[in-house]
Amino acid sequence: MKDPRSIAVIGVTGYTGFELATLLLRHPAIARPTFYVRETNGAHCLSEMFPQLRGWGEAPVKTLSFEAIAESNAGTAFLATPHEVSAELAPKLLDAGLDVIDLSGAFRFASADTYSAWYKLPAPHASRLTQAVYGLPELYAGEIRVAKLIANPGCYATSVILALHPLQKAGLLAPGHTVVCDCKSGASGAGRDPRRDLHFVEVQGNFRAYNIFSHRHTPEILEHTGLGESQLVFTTHLLPIPRGILSSIYLTLAKTLTPQEIEALYRQSYAGHSLTRIHPAGTLPEVQHVVKTNFCDIGFALHADGKRLVVVSCLDNLGKGAAGQAVQNLNLTLGLEERTGLV
Amino acid sequence: MKDPRSIAVIGVTGYTGFELATLLLRHPAIARPTFYVRETNGAHCLSEMFPQLRGWGEAPVKTLSFEAIAESNAGTAFLATPHEVSAELAPKLLDAGLDVIDLSGAFRFASADTYSAWYKLPAPHASRLTQAVYGLPELYAGEIRVAKLIANPGCYATSVILALHPLQKAGLLAPGHTVVCDCKSGASGAGRDPRRDLHFVEVQGNFRAYNIFSHRHTPEILEHTGLGESQLVFTTHLLPIPRGILSSIYLTLAKTLTPQEIEALYRQSYAGHSLTRIHPAGTLPEVQHVVKTNFCDIGFALHADGKRLVVVSCLDNLGKGAAGQAVQNLNLTLGLEERTGLV
Amino acid sequence: MKDPRSIAVIGVTGYTGFELATLLLRHPAIARPTFYVRETNGAHCLSEMFPQLRGWGEAPVKTLSFEAIAESNAGTAFLATPHEVSAELAPKLLDAGLDVIDLSGAFRFASADTYSAWYKLPAPHASRLTQAVYGLPELYAGEIRVAKLIANPGCYATSVILALHPLQKAGLLAPGHTVVCDCKSGASGAGRDPRRDLHFVEVQGNFRAYNIFSHRHTPEILEHTGLGESQLVFTTHLLPIPRGILSSIYLTLAKTLTPQEIEALYRQSYAGHSLTRIHPAGTLPEVQHVVKTNFCDIGFALHADGKRLVVVSCLDNLGKGAAGQAVQNLNLTLGLEERTGLV
Amino acid sequence: MKDPRSIAVIGVTGYTGFELATLLLRHPAIARPTFYVRETNGAHCLSEMFPQLRGWGEAPVKTLSFEAIAESNAGTAFLATPHEVSAELAPKLLDAGLDVIDLSGAFRFASADTYSAWYKLPAPHASRLTQAVYGLPELYAGEIRVAKLIANPGCYATSVILALHPLQKAGLLAPGHTVVCDCKSGASGAGRDPRRDLHFVEVQGNFRAYNIFSHRHTPEILEHTGLGESQLVFTTHLLPIPRGILSSIYLTLAKTLTPQEIEALYRQSYAGHSLTRIHPAGTLPEVQHVVKTNFCDIGFALHADGKRLVVVSCLDNLGKGAAGQAVQNLNLTLGLEERTGLV
Repeated sequence: MKDPRSIAVIGVTGYTGFELATLLLRHPAIARPTFYVRETNGAHCLSEMFPQLRGWGEAPVKTLSFEAIAESNAGTAFLATPHEVSAELAPKLLDAGLDVIDLSGAFRFASADTYSAWYKLPAPHASRLTQAVYGLPELYAGEIRVAKLIANPGCYATSVILALHPLQKAGLLAPGHTVVCDCKSGASGAGRDPRRDLHFVEVQGNFRAYNIFSHRHTPEILEHTGLGESQLVFTTHLLPIPRGILSSIYLTLAKTLTPQEIEALYRQSYAGHSLTRIHPAGTLPEVQHVVKTNFCDIGFALHADGKRLVVVSCLDNLGKGAAGQAVQNLNLTLGLEERTGLV
Repeated sequence: MKDPRSIAVIGVTGYTGFELATLLLRHPAIARPTFYVRETNGAHCLSEMFPQLRGWGEAPVKTLSFEAIAESNAGTAFLATPHEVSAELAPKLLDAGLDVIDLSGAFRFASADTYSAWYKLPAPHASRLTQAVYGLPELYAGEIRVAKLIANPGCYATSVILALHPLQKAGLLAPGHTVVCDCKSGASGAGRDPRRDLHFVEVQGNFRAYNIFSHRHTPEILEHTGLGESQLVFTTHLLPIPRGILSSIYLTLAKTLTPQEIEALYRQSYAGHSLTRIHPAGTLPEVQHVVKTNFCDIGFALHADGKRLVVVSCLDNLGKGAAGQAVQNLNLTLGLEERTGLV
Repeated sequence: MKDPRSIAVIGVTGYTGFELATLLLRHPAIARPTFYVRETNGAHCLSEMFPQLRGWGEAPVKTLSFEAIAESNAGTAFLATPHEVSAELAPKLLDAGLDVIDLSGAFRFASADTYSAWYKLPAPHASRLTQAVYGLPELYAGEIRVAKLIANPGCYATSVILALHPLQKAGLLAPGHTVVCDCKSGASGAGRDPRRDLHFVEVQGNFRAYNIFSHRHTPEILEHTGLGESQLVFTTHLLPIPRGILSSIYLTLAKTLTPQEIEALYRQSYAGHSLTRIHPAGTLPEVQHVVKTNFCDIGFALHADGKRLVVVSCLDNLGKGAAGQAVQNLNLTLGLEERTGLV
Repeated sequence: MKDPRSIAVIGVTGYTGFELATLLLRHPAIARPTFYVRETNGAHCLSEMFPQLRGWGEAPVKTLSFEAIAESNAGTAFLATPHEVSAELAPKLLDAGLDVIDLSGAFRFASADTYSAWYKLPAPHASRLTQAVYGLPELYAGEIRVAKLIANPGCYATSVILALHPLQKAGLLAPGHTVVCDCKSGASGAGRDPRRDLHFVEVQGNFRAYNIFSHRHTPEILEHTGLGESQLVFTTHLLPIPRGILSSIYLTLAKTLTPQEIEALYRQSYAGHSLTRIHPAGTLPEVQHVVKTNFCDIGFALHADGKRLVVVSCLDNLGKGAAGQAVQNLNLTLGLEERTGLV
């Protein structure tokens, strides 16, 4: 008998998977999850793979087996797996009666063409793409509560969409003006696999831009802000910090506003969503305030002309940008308060 | 008898002053400089103040005395002093027959009003402001060679102006489109005085924006790029690294170009200035390539539309952004090759 | 009416005080504490002083007033104050009927002379010194449970004593052989006040020893390990990390042992104390496993000669080394499981 | 015709090889070297492999070919290659008439058994081992000047031997007392190959010990300090910094000394070797003073008992610990002042 509060986590060796593990192990409303990995290397317990979990995070680890998951009473599966693995596993798990929260990009787009164009991978079946709900609770809580398949958003995309959506919805983005999103992320966003350009010596003391005009989070941003491709410039940079994203977003308002009006707009937009915090006009968020939290902090500076606006949006790429948001989505599907186990 | 190759350095306790000291101590064409500070605390030799100089950087340190400098044979003075101290000292030194290279903001503007508005300090006398040459060799080498008073540019300003000037001069900045300069600097740019927000624990692992719409380098950028105030958005961020600036600059071209055309434009603009290095189209500069150097590295990414351009400009805020550029200016006034002692 | 679960925290602006605040705000068995500071600067709520607390850590902040605390129903006071302030406040609070957990060094020694010699401050009254219990739960849980005044141990001292105590108690420290404790701490251990040598630029990329033969934690180590002064060498180093201590401890065993025997000794010694974790022979602890936790991790390497032993002990200087241990002590005084609110 | 100032460098892709390249490219007494690598990946010029060299470090890169080197006029070869590659190449190059400076461990021991036991590799021929000179100029300058094959010392070994040799030579190490060498190194010492435990996220904010009782530099330390194996404990730790070693060395003196006597002993021992700097009694070296230099800084703290001594030794693992020392050795073989090109 499937129990939605009985959890299977598939993939735990990456930074996102491990973060998800620590959140679920502490979550007050669910039982201890079972973890599935491709290679257990002889481990039976999560703390054998991660010594930092000893004494509080013991949980079973098993070799990934679709049959074992299907036969268990697990009612919800998290996929912290590569895009192509998620694309393959999610439909099977859904067919076996589990709800699925996928942290990859495989189900983030209604259009198979969009996915294939940006990810260079074959798209999941169209019926699955349309079934999937984009798991950004501040925008889509209603759909998420009843979703069977949730596509957890990208980390950069979350920071940008939460900053832009209220302005766009209010018709405040001046047409014909480019919106510039200059985003910076800590190194855990690049994954845990060894790479020369992620070697400590190459990152420490360094800073660089990457993937200009080609980052995969672009189509998510376009879709959920309503911007046209020609209106957006989105760039990403690698910060010499383990975790955290700060996005500086530049735009021209369609009409002159005061700082108070902008603050009020954001507060209204996120009323009832306490995990998105609005800074008082005149102060700005910073990465250290959100690291190891599930908050997205939004602040802004408005030019004296009342038109040129810089919005600064901050979150933890492993928290609100990945694993924390996945748990926030779980909370909604379970009928819990959205911040349960997250604050 | 004044000898322009005999150097007095005033101020050495800040990061810029110390960097200047290390460059001058190694410079092959000048004698060992004399250093003047407000308080020697009993030191007679620079290595007593900075143990890392022992064994190679011994040089005399004296209590600051205008008379002593005037009576020495020093023909060139560097001012690594606060704005208000530079404003007071530079005219006296000029009157005493020394050439002055000032690293503060005191003489960077022809207009006293501009200076006072942005620095909240009384401006030097108008005759001194108009006498001063803005010490950006890639743009003003001719004037610098014969200057008596050189105002060494701001660090952010150098990185932005070098990136924008060729485009502006070629008429390539589309009118009506905002130019966004999203700049990030290491912590030495904020000075060496103890401050809680520069405490290691507050900077490490953190990242934040500051001084949006109010940074003092704004008027330099406007003046030397020719941009109107309404066309520019300039923001600054604090990177958790000791030194280095990376500026990401966003603009719309007035006409469609190819990457090859843009690369060629930059190469032509800086032909003969080997300290500004142009990246081949398709590659981008990064901070670690310029730290502890006097290079400004410029690269770019052009959108497939041939219009949206991101220019990335990198330098060491203490090198090309301050002390190194001051030595480059010295080289020009001495008739030396501009990179002498810098590469 | 005094309620021991009603908490007053005095001092919250340092790193230890703030860490204590975050732990108490999340503690499941106590009500929201009240915070007292010397200067509120107009703040009424903790989140006005620390924006990162917004949305979850709102708690009252008041100007420090002994009378207000005495008249409140607070039954337990934490002192996260300088030594001399603690020395003055603790007796008053005790007299007013509160239990006191002091995080300074003021009450760590039974001997006033020891305190005065190492801290260069007048000692509290002898009756208070003898009343105080040294708050190291792994050694003194019984006394702590009934204590009115708890002197929370030093961070370095905790890491060293937990590593040495089982060996000393078993008579395994070879007489005539020096015990070397080479300890390294992150920069938060040096406090939050601005200092030039704690400026980001001075710490990042750097490493240095300090206070050799003169660190104030020396007498704590001597007292609770039973070592004679001539047997101990204790040195401290500043790590370029925000938090964490790793102590490498070198000693010669009084008799030949196997790794299994040593592991067994440690396990027996800390049975029932799950916050001190023993590494399996052959593996070593590392700082990242204990940061933001209340664990002390202990591992070791034994030379093939069975005599030369290196013990490695790791903890978070703000967690088990300060605020976390203070909460662990609170738990004991309240009759709770010692890890309540800490894991 | 072989010219000893014509240099071939074999191996440049690691941190040591690249550091060596930057030193040789700036060396005032030698011509531009030629670099040989296993795979050029189409590069003909070093700056194509390392963009940071553009504009000053252009030098030819060729596919490694023993024949090409032998036929060139290169008279000196540096080997920045793995141990087993050095073991194979050095004899060939020597036979072809080149002098060889090897930065690997292959020729550091007179005994083939010692090498094989610690490196788990077949040793070079015994005649080569005995031909090789251990390239520590402060101890063996005479032999180095006339050497054909120089084995450049290990980084940790250099820091420890320079600290201990004067004491041992003076008979000051108390017999029967263990000498503890607690050494810490930056991450470049672990090499440039991608490894999960060198990923930025695993190193930043972390600190750990490794290779206790088993580090390969142990036999070098034993051989050149004269310590017996039973007298030494040598441990190594990974610092979250790119470069730099600090060794804290603990010992008991054979007789009571004053700080002045110890300082004098060190100064006499290294008179004429200006790259080893002795700190005045009462001050200690720190990593930031030696990073990107070829200095080894030595300081100490003596207990009031005049017997317990802590020596602190600092160097840059890529400078004095590897590439810089190799150039220092080159200088001696060329009859130059030993610091030429290094200060």
